[in-house]
Amino acid sequence: MLSNARTLFAKRLKELRQSRGFSQESLADRAGLHRTYVGSVERAERNVSIDNMERIAQALEVDIAELLRSDRE
Amino acid sequence: MLSNARTLFAKRLKELRQSRGFSQESLADRAGLHRTYVGSVERAERNVSIDNMERIAQALEVDIAELLRSDRE
Repeated sequence: MLSNARTLFAKRLKELRQSRGFSQESLADRAGLHRTYVGSVERAERNVSIDNMERIAQALEVDIAELLRSDRE
Repeated sequence: MLSNARTLFAKRLKELRQSRGFSQESLADRAGLHRTYVGSVERAERNVSIDNMERIAQALEVDIAELLRSDRE
């Protein structure tokens, strides 16, 4: 079973990336990550580290907490 | 230089752990992690993964976003 936090992060990442009109590739470039890595994070396949979560948050120009905020908050 | 997200997570973890009266060891036991691992996360030495962040959040009975919320929010 996939982690809830992974699934939440994946969903928020995809939402925020798309809301900014970024492709996976352009987000990956901004974050200094590989396109296939971003894809696997969006599929909740990766046990992403806090350093890479921060790179992604910076590329999206959001606080890292925004990427873990669930709908019920 | 240490990551801001690591430093923030470390600070929030320590604050929440102490506010609950847990030692590093008792938190580690609750989270299924090793005491020395929790210590190194609190010193922002570890590039902690989202799965372990979730275990720590569950042990503290908070949403994972609580562990990344900065004071300015």
